Amino acid sequence: MNDPIDQIKKAISNYIDVDDLEWADYAQDFSLKSVKKKELILQQGRICNTVFFVRKGLLRVFFVDANGEEKTFHFSMENTFSADYESFLKKKPSNYSIQTLEDSELILMPFEMLHRGYEILKNGEKLGRLLAEEYFFLFSSKIHAIYTQSPMDRYNQLNKAYPNLLQRVPQHYIASFLNISPVHLSRLKNQSA
Amino acid sequence: MNDPIDQIKKAISNYIDVDDLEWADYAQDFSLKSVKKKELILQQGRICNTVFFVRKGLLRVFFVDANGEEKTFHFSMENTFSADYESFLKKKPSNYSIQTLEDSELILMPFEMLHRGYEILKNGEKLGRLLAEEYFFLFSSKIHAIYTQSPMDRYNQLNKAYPNLLQRVPQHYIASFLNISPVHLSRLKNQSA
Repeated sequence: MNDPIDQIKKAISNYIDVDDLEWADYAQDFSLKSVKKKELILQQGRICNTVFFVRKGLLRVFFVDANGEEKTFHFSMENTFSADYESFLKKKPSNYSIQTLEDSELILMPFEMLHRGYEILKNGEKLGRLLAEEYFFLFSSKIHAIYTQSPMDRYNQLNKAYPNLLQRVPQHYIASFLNISPVHLSRLKNQSA
Repeated sequence: MNDPIDQIKKAISNYIDVDDLEWADYAQDFSLKSVKKKELILQQGRICNTVFFVRKGLLRVFFVDANGEEKTFHFSMENTFSADYESFLKKKPSNYSIQTLEDSELILMPFEMLHRGYEILKNGEKLGRLLAEEYFFLFSSKIHAIYTQSPMDRYNQLNKAYPNLLQRVPQHYIASFLNISPVHLSRLKNQSA
């Protein structure tokens, strides 16, 4: 496997230009963590003090709704960031839990790195802008899906956004992500096959 | 009334420090528009090429859902910005319409000012970050409300976030914002009175 710090640098380079000198200074505060599958790495109601970068593995972001039902909100794949980013930015209790669905290798970015990033990295504010915009787009697409998309639309969009996810994730999580029953999900899979 | 360009500068100064020299350069591309009430200033499906700053008046952001029903998503009050910000950033068809609910004085910020802002204003990227974070928080609170709040919770939150709005807006828009029927809304008002 690549050097972990190179791997996250590569991911960040998709957003901004980073030069080696500022990176050497900035990157020293990352830490690594191996987590077995099915472990909770953020608990709803606690403050999210860390952004997780998924080096390897797969995370599930979920919450418990007003009826006590667990809803899957998002899957975080390799080479993406995961957090309750609002809780992280505002230091307020998180609305979401995050768990590993597979044995995972994570890079941890503690809260202190956020403001240090704005100061140290010459494009740090731009990085913050692009990450916030990405979260905004994600939440916007969720709302759009709730109000205007059929279960089949959502299923097709999931397949497009996350190829192979259906093979990696227990089907009841996929169903809860799509806001349908597992039986409804099997029907959609048969229809689209 | 204040000078319009001073008014928007004051609003922007809530996000970032702006010095007079860069402001003089930047501000020349704003334009002013008076719009009578009940006019459409953005139509769902069109690209949102302008951010509107509400100098005076009141805007309603809404969309038509999968059942052809109109849903009120947001109200934009004086001294706030309004747009389909995702459509604006991505230049893709908007998911929302915007209309004036009162005779309004608007300051228009065309798309070109976005990237010029990142370049000209020394804190331009920070402004972009904070605006994107604000949109992200707004959409996040919407999702949270959909899944976990009762109509009464949403009603109380609306009153808190927008004092006096109930007196300024036709009640069926308030009901559609809260995702309840007008009859349900009158009941809530009586209960909370």
